[in-house]
Amino acid sequence: MPSLYDVAAIGNAIVDVIAPASEAFLEAEGLAKGSMMLIDETRALALYGRMAGGVEASGGSAANTAAGVASFGGRAAYLGKVADDQLGEVFAHDIRAIGVDFRASPLEGRPATGACLINVTPDGERTMCTYLGAAIELRDTDIDQEVVEGASVLYLEGYLFDPPEARRAFAKAAGLARGAGRTIALSLSDAFVVERHREALLGFIEGQVDIVFANESELKSLFRTDDFDAAARSIGAMTKIAAVTRGAAGSVVLAEGAIIAVEAFPVEKVVDTTGAGDQYAAGFLFGLAGGRPLESCGRLASLAASEVISHYGPRPQASLRQLATAKGL
Amino acid sequence: MPSLYDVAAIGNAIVDVIAPASEAFLEAEGLAKGSMMLIDETRALALYGRMAGGVEASGGSAANTAAGVASFGGRAAYLGKVADDQLGEVFAHDIRAIGVDFRASPLEGRPATGACLINVTPDGERTMCTYLGAAIELRDTDIDQEVVEGASVLYLEGYLFDPPEARRAFAKAAGLARGAGRTIALSLSDAFVVERHREALLGFIEGQVDIVFANESELKSLFRTDDFDAAARSIGAMTKIAAVTRGAAGSVVLAEGAIIAVEAFPVEKVVDTTGAGDQYAAGFLFGLAGGRPLESCGRLASLAASEVISHYGPRPQASLRQLATAKGL
Repeated sequence: MPSLYDVAAIGNAIVDVIAPASEAFLEAEGLAKGSMMLIDETRALALYGRMAGGVEASGGSAANTAAGVASFGGRAAYLGKVADDQLGEVFAHDIRAIGVDFRASPLEGRPATGACLINVTPDGERTMCTYLGAAIELRDTDIDQEVVEGASVLYLEGYLFDPPEARRAFAKAAGLARGAGRTIALSLSDAFVVERHREALLGFIEGQVDIVFANESELKSLFRTDDFDAAARSIGAMTKIAAVTRGAAGSVVLAEGAIIAVEAFPVEKVVDTTGAGDQYAAGFLFGLAGGRPLESCGRLASLAASEVISHYGPRPQASLRQLATAKGL
Repeated sequence: MPSLYDVAAIGNAIVDVIAPASEAFLEAEGLAKGSMMLIDETRALALYGRMAGGVEASGGSAANTAAGVASFGGRAAYLGKVADDQLGEVFAHDIRAIGVDFRASPLEGRPATGACLINVTPDGERTMCTYLGAAIELRDTDIDQEVVEGASVLYLEGYLFDPPEARRAFAKAAGLARGAGRTIALSLSDAFVVERHREALLGFIEGQVDIVFANESELKSLFRTDDFDAAARSIGAMTKIAAVTRGAAGSVVLAEGAIIAVEAFPVEKVVDTTGAGDQYAAGFLFGLAGGRPLESCGRLASLAASEVISHYGPRPQASLRQLATAKGL
């Protein structure tokens, strides 16, 4: 069946609040640098009260990836839940403005649209505290069959393993995609998410996932090892394609026995790493949708990641399509 | 009387929505590049719907200046009106987080917090459409006597000449400051504001203003002339100090017959000029509060402007105090 979309992404719909912070601030707040921690509304309000002034930008891992695919000129759809409030309007506006099909109607009343409080240290590393808010209300009834069955790739974020109802939605979407003969991709999202849901994630990957995106620490956590090569071999054996990012050291793509090393694109100054993994996945999936060889997919992935880490915010500010053309990709 | 604050600023409290745009978009929307246009809520929603995805950041001209003064380590207070909604919370959080005293309680119910829709063209120039929202509800009863009388400088934005009630608040604040023997500073804000309120502005400047901030086009509009030197002489004769910015060409400070040329600080890439004039005023007023010579005030002003135009958003992302120290100012 021809596809309506290159990628349909499902995730926690979140607006980011991004502010500069010192290492001492992270320590005083008990935040593990580079991680994502779930917090409740009370904690969110208290932490926000102590954070520096910042900027607000639409986020959500899988939503960022859908936005990146659209910025490359790909066809993307997104499923996720925001509330009927100002930040929910911002989220819906931004994802539609970049060209992603976002059909969901907002949740009426409480809880408010989810927010991710992101403290960015001077080295550009981001530390995230997420208040899921309305995102937690994503139900299996929110899974639009036409969208999921119509997409070449169903892209799921590991963060969805946290809200119990979302896991049901996740399972329903995977079943529909599988039934329609579509490809299923999963991002591991965060080492602590992997720690919390290791067995469930491993079972899901073995049973249903074709493409896994992970960074080094997530991958090591998944296989409870400090040996990167061993972990890479393990994930390579479990999936058709695994793409593992290693920050400035680039990434490694494993596919049917082959191992392809991909260099990172040079960046003048790393301002904020928020969204780096999300945009990597966007470039990779856009390349795959275009039938490109894996090495070329990896180059597009690296390019997209390099754009997003050069400014505040988790989504591209430049057109990734124009950027790719300018770089001869 | 010793002062509680270096600067008390009064203005329209606004949250900015900043998005990239093409020159063709401005033309299609009928927007005069580089200007500020007032729009109603219906027009705001329609324009927002057609704008690209963006970021939200607290703004408001005088609020940005207060934030800049605080970022330099100065003592600043701000008076302005937001609503009891999410963007109002963002505004209140951000201005307090940077260290500005902001005591106002939010407006309950409608209208919503004011928003400025800012389209940034590839050359970094910003074109603004403002929906005043709750800002229009600023009343003379919102003018906190202790704050105004306690500040060395009362800083007012010309934008306040638009909402009728705000003009009354403006007049009350000026009267209090004058009575307490304080300095009154005014930013002309925008050439179209000057066009709308030329006579009222000229009367206010002649009667009550000690320091005027303007850019070249605002100054020419004020005196209905294309002759910059003539306009500069005119404003110099009307006030104790006039600081006139000329973009990349730097600025000119006129004070009691003296004319001081100040160079712009070099910037690698102009990303978004939003807030350039506001931060110029912040640096200048912080310098004055510290008893510095005018040339040094101008250098601090240029430094603050250079920081803010190198990123999206109208307020400093770096500590201006640290930046000034690093530059030996």
